[in-house]
Order: sequence, then C-alpha cells, then structure tokens
Amino acid sequence: MRIARFQHDGKVAFGVVAGDRVQVYSGSPFGDFQPTESTLALSEVELLAPTQPSKIVCIGMNYSAHAAEIAQDVPDEPLMFFKPSSAIQDPGKPIELPWQSEQVELEGEMAIVIGKTAKNVPIEQVDEYILGFTIGNDVTARDLQFTDLQWARSKGFDTFCPLGPWIETEFDYEGALLEARINGHVRQHAYSTDMNFGVREILSYVSQNVTLNPGDVILTGSPAGISKIEKGDFVECEIKGIGVLANPVA
Amino acid sequence: MRIARFQHDGKVAFGVVAGDRVQVYSGSPFGDFQPTESTLALSEVELLAPTQPSKIVCIGMNYSAHAAEIAQDVPDEPLMFFKPSSAIQDPGKPIELPWQSEQVELEGEMAIVIGKTAKNVPIEQVDEYILGFTIGNDVTARDLQFTDLQWARSKGFDTFCPLGPWIETEFDYEGALLEARINGHVRQHAYSTDMNFGVREILSYVSQNVTLNPGDVILTGSPAGISKIEKGDFVECEIKGIGVLANPVA
Repeated sequence: MRIARFQHDGKVAFGVVAGDRVQVYSGSPFGDFQPTESTLALSEVELLAPTQPSKIVCIGMNYSAHAAEIAQDVPDEPLMFFKPSSAIQDPGKPIELPWQSEQVELEGEMAIVIGKTAKNVPIEQVDEYILGFTIGNDVTARDLQFTDLQWARSKGFDTFCPLGPWIETEFDYEGALLEARINGHVRQHAYSTDMNFGVREILSYVSQNVTLNPGDVILTGSPAGISKIEKGDFVECEIKGIGVLANPVA
Repeated sequence: MRIARFQHDGKVAFGVVAGDRVQVYSGSPFGDFQPTESTLALSEVELLAPTQPSKIVCIGMNYSAHAAEIAQDVPDEPLMFFKPSSAIQDPGKPIELPWQSEQVELEGEMAIVIGKTAKNVPIEQVDEYILGFTIGNDVTARDLQFTDLQWARSKGFDTFCPLGPWIETEFDYEGALLEARINGHVRQHAYSTDMNFGVREILSYVSQNVTLNPGDVILTGSPAGISKIEKGDFVECEIKGIGVLANPVA
C-alpha cells in the first residue's frame, strides 16, 4: 500500500495511491485511518511530505564507500544525528541553496517511517514498529559540515530534507536498489545490503536512545556518489519498489 | 508575566502565575490567548514544560570557562546543535539516567522561547520574536559526548531536557544570574554577560540557518561547573528573575 499525504482544493489529507489515482482517506495512518468514497487523479493533487515527524533521526557513515569518499571512519555503532523538522521539503518543491555554503550536495537515502511508539525495541520485534518506507534526501552543505564542530547547521537548513513521494508499506527493504540522479545523470547507485547497519539494527539501536513516535523518520544513511547540486538542477532520488523523490534546486 | 503550562483534573491548559495562584487561560500564548474567570492554587496543579517546541536548538561552548573545562575551543560563530523533543521533561519529574552512560552531568541554561515565526531576523529586531525566557537543563552523557562523533545521542536521551518552570515574558536577559545546585550545593554560578554570543546575536544567527516556529526553544549554553548527577540527587537550575527548575534524578 502506498500512503500519500497531499493537498487538494486547499485541504490536506492522506490517501492510498493505486496506479494514477489516489483514494482519499479520513484520519491518518498514525491513528484512525478509514477510506472514504472519494478518489482523485494523482495529477490533480499536490503531494506533500508523507509524514510530519516529531523528529528526524539520521544515521551517518552507514555505507563504507561513502565514509571513505569524505575521509571519515566507519563507526562501531550506528552514528546518530538529527535534522530539524523545519528542514522538510515536499516532493516537487525546490531545495533552496543557502548563501552560507558553496558546496551543497545530495544524499539519497532509504527512510524508515515509524508506525507506533518505539522504545527499547528488540531486534526481532522491529518490524512491528515500522509503518513503511519512504525516500529522504539528506541534503548537506559539505563545506560547513567540516568547518562546524557539529553537523546540525550543515544538514539542518530549511528544505534540506526532501521526503516522499509516499510511504510504501509493503516494501522489501533487504537488497533494495537506491539511485540518485542530477539532470538524469546517475550519481548514486547502491544496494541497501551495503549498509553497515541494517534496518533492524538501526531501529533497535535508536529506540534504546530516544523514544520514537508514530510518524518519526529514520534516514538510514547515504551511499557513495554524493554530488554537488546547483541552481537549476533537477534532483531525483529513486528506490526501486518505493518510487522517485524529485526536487528542483533553487 | 509568568506563563505556565499545567495539568489539572486530567486537562492541560496554559495560565498566568501570580503569587501562589495561576489564572487559567484559554488557547495558547503562541496563538489566541484569553483569560478565563477560573484561578487555581499553584499547589493544586502539576506544572508541565511550558512549551512543546517543534525543535530545540542548543548553543554549545558559549561560556569560555565551560569550553575550557571540557577542553574545547571557543567557536568563532555560535555552535548549533539539536536536542529532540522526546528529551523534554516537565518540572519536578525525574531525569532518568540511561544505562549507556556512566557520567551524566547537568548544564543549567537560559532558554529563549520564540513567540512568532522567525527567519533571517536582523539583530536589532530580535526582541520582537521572543515571547519570553525559561530555564533549560541540557543534561549530557559526558562520556558519550566524546566517544560519539556527534552529540545527538549524548544529549538526546529521553528526559535529558528539563524545561520550566514557566515562561517569564518580562525577564531582563542582560546580566541575569544563573545558578545550578545538586542537593543544595552550588555547582554553577555565572552571569549571562559571560556568554560569548548574547541573546540577540544567537537568535539572529540561528534564524539565518533554520526557520524558528512559535514555541521553539533556544538553549543559550552552559556556564562552567558542570557536575555529575547520580540516582537520588535533587537538581535545581535557578535563574534570578525567572524561577527554579527542579528535577530529581532516577
């Protein structure tokens, strides 16, 4: 099931996408969620980031080839950091380059969407806490990442966390293919099997450190192939089995 | 005006504290905020963290004496990092020591509460965006702060951000006295004039990097005197002109 959040006629709702139509639901997938009799053409609606998380947890250096390309060690445990919710950007909306940076780069990532409150979850029970998966772009001001002591600013600018296009609840996250493109040229191409820490280890680990709320998101790390994005570029992050998250750069 | 958020008879509301009573208000100080005819004794209500921020921005190494005591350089610009909203703890409720750390320390800090959406605010207009001030305790697992590459985990555990006891809207933040005590013994004693970056510089700087929403909080940094807290301790962070934020340690 593909759960989208969208705006139509000035109203925001959740719905389930099938083919080129979306069935409108009442409520939210994080609470009561009921189909209505209304359907809309996908082309009629404006897709929004499919969740409004109370927090965005990211995992750094989770692909060895990416850690190597930015000269970082691969950590012994999942390396957590946060992006603020003000960084979220909707599918199709622009990534805005801040004046503070001269080197903004994309990082296409598989994102876990939490379905129910998760605290101290054992690895073997992780799947019960996952609503589904979406795509995140952990946009990063690479120059500031290494001049600032913490990554909060370099990864926290407004629009630096595009999310979407929807939540796929039946996604097989083992061995998923991730690809990121700039103006159609492939820049990242990797499999989730290359992650140092897998989905189950990550969620269990994070839940031992912070309580995860329904709708919270965990970005599972960027593969190698990070690339500078520039004004006018068109960025696509694709995960086979989920879809394509596309954003222009402004 | 002292704006408190509290629970009474199973309901959560905002109110204005005067002496030992609180006048109940409808709405919230971040929207429509109207007095009702009801007042309650402070002793009858359970104070809650006075805001539910969409993000908590913290400023690191903002007192030179604190940077020195943990052997860090004083940064050229305000050093931003985030705590997750799941870390918030109410006044009077316990700081829970996580099994992951053997060295949890207090950091009593002056906290700015944002009153209206702030983006790219010039220094001379900062005051318009401040609703008031409260007290924050940037509880930190000091051992993990230096073994983890990022501070997200060491400062992000549940209950690691006590906030309160209320928002003082008429607080004179220049030259304020901060004091933190463990079991009545003074551990931190400093003036906000010792901050490397003042309130106006901090808010303006942060707003150039992220959009601040009404209710968001900026913790302005810890003075020297950080001290280990242990199970059974009673921690008080006081700012003259605001009040006392007190939490037991569990």
